[in-house]
Amino acid sequence: MNPLLEEIRRTPLFWLLVLVPVVLVAQLLRPEAHTLLFLLSVAAIVPLAALLSRATESVAAKTGDLLGGLLNATLGNLTELLIALAALRAGQYVLVKASIAGAIVTNSLFMLGASLLLGGLKYHIQEYNRDSARLQAGMLFLATIAMLVPSLLAAADNAASAAFTHSLSVSLSVLLIVTYGLGLAFSLKTHRELFVSKDHHGSEEEEWPLSLALGTLAAVTVLVALVSEVFVESVQQAAVALGITPAFVGIIVVALVGGAAEMVSAFAAARKNNLDLSVGIALGSAVQIALFVAPVLVLASYLLGPTPMDLQFWRGAVAMMLIASVTATFVTSTGRSAWFVGALTLTVYIIFAITLYLLPPQT
Amino acid sequence: MNPLLEEIRRTPLFWLLVLVPVVLVAQLLRPEAHTLLFLLSVAAIVPLAALLSRATESVAAKTGDLLGGLLNATLGNLTELLIALAALRAGQYVLVKASIAGAIVTNSLFMLGASLLLGGLKYHIQEYNRDSARLQAGMLFLATIAMLVPSLLAAADNAASAAFTHSLSVSLSVLLIVTYGLGLAFSLKTHRELFVSKDHHGSEEEEWPLSLALGTLAAVTVLVALVSEVFVESVQQAAVALGITPAFVGIIVVALVGGAAEMVSAFAAARKNNLDLSVGIALGSAVQIALFVAPVLVLASYLLGPTPMDLQFWRGAVAMMLIASVTATFVTSTGRSAWFVGALTLTVYIIFAITLYLLPPQT
Amino acid sequence: MNPLLEEIRRTPLFWLLVLVPVVLVAQLLRPEAHTLLFLLSVAAIVPLAALLSRATESVAAKTGDLLGGLLNATLGNLTELLIALAALRAGQYVLVKASIAGAIVTNSLFMLGASLLLGGLKYHIQEYNRDSARLQAGMLFLATIAMLVPSLLAAADNAASAAFTHSLSVSLSVLLIVTYGLGLAFSLKTHRELFVSKDHHGSEEEEWPLSLALGTLAAVTVLVALVSEVFVESVQQAAVALGITPAFVGIIVVALVGGAAEMVSAFAAARKNNLDLSVGIALGSAVQIALFVAPVLVLASYLLGPTPMDLQFWRGAVAMMLIASVTATFVTSTGRSAWFVGALTLTVYIIFAITLYLLPPQT
Repeated sequence: MNPLLEEIRRTPLFWLLVLVPVVLVAQLLRPEAHTLLFLLSVAAIVPLAALLSRATESVAAKTGDLLGGLLNATLGNLTELLIALAALRAGQYVLVKASIAGAIVTNSLFMLGASLLLGGLKYHIQEYNRDSARLQAGMLFLATIAMLVPSLLAAADNAASAAFTHSLSVSLSVLLIVTYGLGLAFSLKTHRELFVSKDHHGSEEEEWPLSLALGTLAAVTVLVALVSEVFVESVQQAAVALGITPAFVGIIVVALVGGAAEMVSAFAAARKNNLDLSVGIALGSAVQIALFVAPVLVLASYLLGPTPMDLQFWRGAVAMMLIASVTATFVTSTGRSAWFVGALTLTVYIIFAITLYLLPPQT
Repeated sequence: MNPLLEEIRRTPLFWLLVLVPVVLVAQLLRPEAHTLLFLLSVAAIVPLAALLSRATESVAAKTGDLLGGLLNATLGNLTELLIALAALRAGQYVLVKASIAGAIVTNSLFMLGASLLLGGLKYHIQEYNRDSARLQAGMLFLATIAMLVPSLLAAADNAASAAFTHSLSVSLSVLLIVTYGLGLAFSLKTHRELFVSKDHHGSEEEEWPLSLALGTLAAVTVLVALVSEVFVESVQQAAVALGITPAFVGIIVVALVGGAAEMVSAFAAARKNNLDLSVGIALGSAVQIALFVAPVLVLASYLLGPTPMDLQFWRGAVAMMLIASVTATFVTSTGRSAWFVGALTLTVYIIFAITLYLLPPQT
Repeated sequence: MNPLLEEIRRTPLFWLLVLVPVVLVAQLLRPEAHTLLFLLSVAAIVPLAALLSRATESVAAKTGDLLGGLLNATLGNLTELLIALAALRAGQYVLVKASIAGAIVTNSLFMLGASLLLGGLKYHIQEYNRDSARLQAGMLFLATIAMLVPSLLAAADNAASAAFTHSLSVSLSVLLIVTYGLGLAFSLKTHRELFVSKDHHGSEEEEWPLSLALGTLAAVTVLVALVSEVFVESVQQAAVALGITPAFVGIIVVALVGGAAEMVSAFAAARKNNLDLSVGIALGSAVQIALFVAPVLVLASYLLGPTPMDLQFWRGAVAMMLIASVTATFVTSTGRSAWFVGALTLTVYIIFAITLYLLPPQT
């Protein structure tokens, strides 16, 4: 039997895939039912993201360590990238930026904190590779700083013109992508021994043939792109109808939806006392968003968007990203964890979520 | 002989208790002598705070580890809480907030720095339980971040209305108290072995009978509350008369007065090379103010205050609290200290004190 | 043969000394050729700074550990001090402050990052004295915080008057110099064993006689002062002519020119796997600028400047100094390094440089 169908049959999460055709048909028949389309598209993206992640791993497993690492590093946040690209094409730059900030904050606070809490509720003290976590936290910290500087300096200088902001954003985007490439060379090639973890992830899963994996990757990418369009078109009116602030949707809901698949992996690993994997997924995703997805979106806006997008964020988002990266750096600096460490990290996230939920819409 | 009277006879600090009736009588006879009342009430609160702290410890010692730990954790900053409640009832929210910020900054910079300096002048290098200090510093760091977020986000968003600030403040206060409770469960129950220190504190002191300890606790609480009223009523006119800025009084003077008793314990422990205790008192107090006293005051303002109080602080106070918690985190991250580490920590405090002293009153 | 002339003959960098008379003559003959004078003075300061540094070390080597350490600690950034004094006399306080901020940022990001990168390209993993680096990074961190507080608080309080800023700046300057003196007592006297490194620096260089070293020190100081005058007078018009922003010149160009000699030493040490020396030069210089040069300039402005100078910096410079010191603290916290750590540190510097280069001139 086809291993893809076999796996879909076995995994209840994948049964939600039935919503994918439902949402696409609903979009044709009832394009004005924004709240329904929003809820359906959210529910449909979750299993698609899981499938995308599964297919990426299968391709990576087949193509050897170096190429596989590169694939995971570039396609690991494909769902977030596709949602953001859909928002970009629609010119919704506030949503694009909110989803970037949200993915960084959610990965480095919610995914990390919940992993440490879930693991800590089962094991008294958990240890993980401190060097590897430090290096990843350091990359996240420096990456976040890098991305924040334009917002800080622009805020400090009222004379900053739009032309300045745009040329700065393009320069920094190129620099960030180069840095990300250097980071891959470091972790996959020159110093790969530092990043080796006891990763048993996926060993229990059946290997897919390469053709199936590649085909699934391509097909699901198209489906995620289509459903993302529905999501982006419906999200704003749905938020108004549901009484949720746009900031909460952009920063919290989109990030939880886009990262659901990775969270399942990270939480499962934490419950198996494999915090190396949990911390690696959480911080690795945040690094990838900050150093790769965000600058790619800025550059892509010149091709796909109605006008160029810059890297200047809302000051509240800047503060949240900075606090998130400092918290992640501090939390992972010892390589040891207990349940309360996870609870504190989650608390910071809950504070952000409450604040965004209550924040009155900007006029 | 009554051990309370015996102890008062033996300890010169307690002789200042004679000022308690003096200040209460003076308040009746000369209610307009603000400067005199201010100075008398400051001098009367110091021995009362020491007695309160002594009674709390006696009750805690009698009631076993868990209940005793809870008592110390909730009543440890009773003096600060009573002063702030007096200010709250008078509707002086600027003074309440200044005393919260001041207690955090003073405990984590002055009490910590002076302990490290005093200990370091006697011992070349001092070591202490690094794990315990890291965890406490981490709690302080995360607690401070938690408390700062509303100020940061509100500052970043001009559209933030008063309704938003109030509902956010209540939500966060509940969340902070829950987190504080989880922290107590962690340090007193599930992971208490991490927090064990060579605490010989009080072993040389005579045990009080429970009835005496409870009676003292109740009586002194009433006296502190009465003297605090005098203090709060006189502080502003006295500050004007003495040429001191209200910010300096609220942030520096109140915190030094309220924390005097704990400082005596922390400094004595440092001179006995028991930095575990000194660091524990200093950071523990700061954590308690941030996670317990501050949110309790916000919630209490709905019952006791003329109008509800929020958690939004003056931006300068936010900056000071953030710098204080980052400094404490950095200073305690190695578990080793020498005199210059204490001197640097104190220097940061002196910088704040000078700045507040020179700051022109806000119009 | 005179060891000074011998050394000049042997070292190609010193051949640039021929430009010193050229720039002084050019200033007399063509005082309006700002761009030429700017380029000539930059090229002339580099070999002078190297000679100044060489002479200081020779004097220090002759005068024993304690006095020599004091000399190095006070004259180590003599070039930066002389340039800043020239700007101070000309009343160019924006340039003075930019050169202070620039020296801190350049030393703690560019010099440190390039050292780690150059060393890391040759050695897989490099280790260095973690305690010593932590203490220096801590001093830098606390020093930077200290220097930033007035800017933070002044920014937070619109009512802050000029009188407040000036009395605060003088108080803090005295406090910083006292702290610097305590730091010297700590590192040279009470706890010198913590700061011992395998410093083979200069062992291959010929010892100069004390009279030659002192004479060179005096003569070169005068020459640097003269060339700095030319530099300061020409820099603004030259920047306009070359299309470079004043912020870029003040923060990036001046710091690279003034610190060129130290950078040569730091990079050479890193290539010899002596990161203790590289990190010590980079962070030590940054500490010296923040705790000694900056406050001396504030106090000197009362004697030499047309009006008193304060310690309040442009908000963008404050952000850059804070990020630089946090980055240096994080980078050096483990005592281990690989090439990517250096690359990330350099990237933060490049981000600042690009931003300042693109920043439109303030109106």
